[in-house]
Amino acid sequence: MNEIKKIAAAVKADSFRMACLSGEARNDALRAMAIALADNCDGIARANEADLDAGEKAGLAAPLLKRLKFDGEKIADVIAGTRDLIKLPDPVGRILLQRELDKGLILTRVSCPIGVIGVIFESRPDALVQIAALCLKSGNCAILKGGSEAKRTNRVLFEILHAAGTDAGVPAGFLTLLESRSDIDELLTCHESIDLIIPRGSNAFVRHIMDRSDIPVMGHSDGVCHVYVDRAADIGKAVAVIRDSKVQYPAACNAAETILVHADIAEALLPPLWDELKSKGVLMRGTPRIAGILPDVEPATEEDNRTEYLDFIVSLAVTDSIDEAIEHINTYGSHHTDCIVTEDEAAAERFLQLVDSAGVYQNCSTRFADGFRYGFGAEVGIGTGKLHARGPVGLEGLATYKYLLRGDGHIVADYAEGRRHFRFKDLR
Amino acid sequence: MNEIKKIAAAVKADSFRMACLSGEARNDALRAMAIALADNCDGIARANEADLDAGEKAGLAAPLLKRLKFDGEKIADVIAGTRDLIKLPDPVGRILLQRELDKGLILTRVSCPIGVIGVIFESRPDALVQIAALCLKSGNCAILKGGSEAKRTNRVLFEILHAAGTDAGVPAGFLTLLESRSDIDELLTCHESIDLIIPRGSNAFVRHIMDRSDIPVMGHSDGVCHVYVDRAADIGKAVAVIRDSKVQYPAACNAAETILVHADIAEALLPPLWDELKSKGVLMRGTPRIAGILPDVEPATEEDNRTEYLDFIVSLAVTDSIDEAIEHINTYGSHHTDCIVTEDEAAAERFLQLVDSAGVYQNCSTRFADGFRYGFGAEVGIGTGKLHARGPVGLEGLATYKYLLRGDGHIVADYAEGRRHFRFKDLR
Repeated sequence: MNEIKKIAAAVKADSFRMACLSGEARNDALRAMAIALADNCDGIARANEADLDAGEKAGLAAPLLKRLKFDGEKIADVIAGTRDLIKLPDPVGRILLQRELDKGLILTRVSCPIGVIGVIFESRPDALVQIAALCLKSGNCAILKGGSEAKRTNRVLFEILHAAGTDAGVPAGFLTLLESRSDIDELLTCHESIDLIIPRGSNAFVRHIMDRSDIPVMGHSDGVCHVYVDRAADIGKAVAVIRDSKVQYPAACNAAETILVHADIAEALLPPLWDELKSKGVLMRGTPRIAGILPDVEPATEEDNRTEYLDFIVSLAVTDSIDEAIEHINTYGSHHTDCIVTEDEAAAERFLQLVDSAGVYQNCSTRFADGFRYGFGAEVGIGTGKLHARGPVGLEGLATYKYLLRGDGHIVADYAEGRRHFRFKDLR
Repeated sequence: MNEIKKIAAAVKADSFRMACLSGEARNDALRAMAIALADNCDGIARANEADLDAGEKAGLAAPLLKRLKFDGEKIADVIAGTRDLIKLPDPVGRILLQRELDKGLILTRVSCPIGVIGVIFESRPDALVQIAALCLKSGNCAILKGGSEAKRTNRVLFEILHAAGTDAGVPAGFLTLLESRSDIDELLTCHESIDLIIPRGSNAFVRHIMDRSDIPVMGHSDGVCHVYVDRAADIGKAVAVIRDSKVQYPAACNAAETILVHADIAEALLPPLWDELKSKGVLMRGTPRIAGILPDVEPATEEDNRTEYLDFIVSLAVTDSIDEAIEHINTYGSHHTDCIVTEDEAAAERFLQLVDSAGVYQNCSTRFADGFRYGFGAEVGIGTGKLHARGPVGLEGLATYKYLLRGDGHIVADYAEGRRHFRFKDLR
């Protein structure tokens, strides 16, 4: 058995101890973690400075350095986030269904932790704290692998959180940090011990994980999000929503990449949209019909329909109907988040019903697709698959359920042979 | 593009039309299907007789022939099942969460169909009707591949259901029947069109599907279920629960395969259990400690711990504590359904909490793990994975959800830059 398999098996064994902890015990540990982070701000900041220095010397790009930076304000944010989590209801032990099947035979569906969750993330050290806290709150053990550029910060954060948690009585396996990139591939083979893998990072990285893992993976690779401007759109709202969806944070998965414009509104919308996006430094690519209205647009190819730029670039296309727009989105999109801008409620309802995405919006920015903005407290990621959690995944997505059946010697033969009959009665 | 990919793509296109049907329209189609089945009983019975003749000539085993048989009584059962489904609440369009994020910005989580579901099943023709009806009720398109030994019955059932559904206004792609075994492997590559695969059949068959599919698979391969008899068990209940769990229908996935007995109760339990199981024709295999009490028991090896006999065979082992039993179950079991027999409520709660299975029972037969017996109306299968649906999967497991966000030009920059603030308010 390789080293990672041994570690994962030990964590699995501890996951059953985790499942026995009360919500109060898990909250106590979260509180201890928040206090320990506050007590060790200086050490965290020093480790982060060392990572930043090394990153600068290695020539890391400015946006990466920005994500890597973990200073007083960001530390305060994750401490506040951890404290907020304490206040949220316990996702574990919730009774989701309680039904008497017959006299004395009671079925209960109760939420419980998933078990052991492997999370692989890049650069941002705040992710380590958030994920550790979310997994602890939901009674799961977490095995984390962070980006190597943040290794000093991650190591210090891990040591603080692990000591605080175990001092508060949580089993040692609640949190494990892997530090070598080669550990990832071994981790993906531990299907006997690990119940779920959550990869966060670039498309290529997530796809690599999804392709190699025998373990269920929750997440998304692409974020090709659309804004469709319907014939009945308010031009001002359309321009504002597109601007925000594209430029508020272009590197995010929920930023818009393709704008679809109904032919009837194209001539009214495109010139002011061009001016607005141009002023923000956005490069626009368009189909020939777009070029007919915006002669200076760069030409777009079919490949642009599938491209997640993650940059100040957007592609534009004209559609002759709302159904053509819906079909474009369902064909080329990544089922992440897509928006219609319209004042026509019937058109909006058709779009909301037919677009096959985790988030379907009317008259608001695609950038709202986020666990914090949905009021989930925090998120471990965004799922674009259709099973289990879809969209931003908070605490609820870190729980599963089991069916408990309590009887008094009940046997199936009595029902199969007609001596007894089921009398279903929901108890709550 | 191969033939199956083309078929799947056409079904995918129809799945969006399916998503537009009202619950009433889907119920009308179910009603039409029930009537058409009743009107065509004779044709179904004739096709089934031809399948049975061919099966006998091909030397099919008696249990297989029994499963294949689809006569008046079974036809009446599936008609009644289809009618029952009409009465169940619509699993689609349910509002699962509604939250005001800020004034005029309303988040709604609404249940919706998964899309296109591929179901691969063996022998029993009633499965075809049940699955078709469950998928239609939940607004999904179904692509079915049944066992070749039932091909005549399946073809007639498919033609009846397809004509009744399309006459009632449902898109033609709602139901598709594949008839060649080689179609299965092609089906598993259609990840662009098929959202979920549900395989039903033998362990080896289901594992083959799980290993080859790029598409999410819901189901279970093994059903290694346990009954653990605690030191505080009532002997009479223990013997009855074990007998039922083993012999009521040994070929089922929820039949018990291993019996664990606390050392303190072994001498009292094992002799009457031996007599009872012996009288039912059950072959018992036991560890050396079992042989110390039951000298005539066959020897059990470690392999028995992992074996799903699906037959009148059971393995027996002694444990020195409840925790040893729990560890045995979590190590060797298949996370399907496991039972403790005890009058000690604290022991029961520990077992219910720590056994990591879809169903964890106290004092009742493992054979209760079934969608009908849980009051779900019907089931498409039983899931032993921890994501999405776990345990018997009924209508609810055939739905996913999406987040709808309705605004009035809301943009994220206003919140990021402090001009506006989220004020979460749950509306229901």
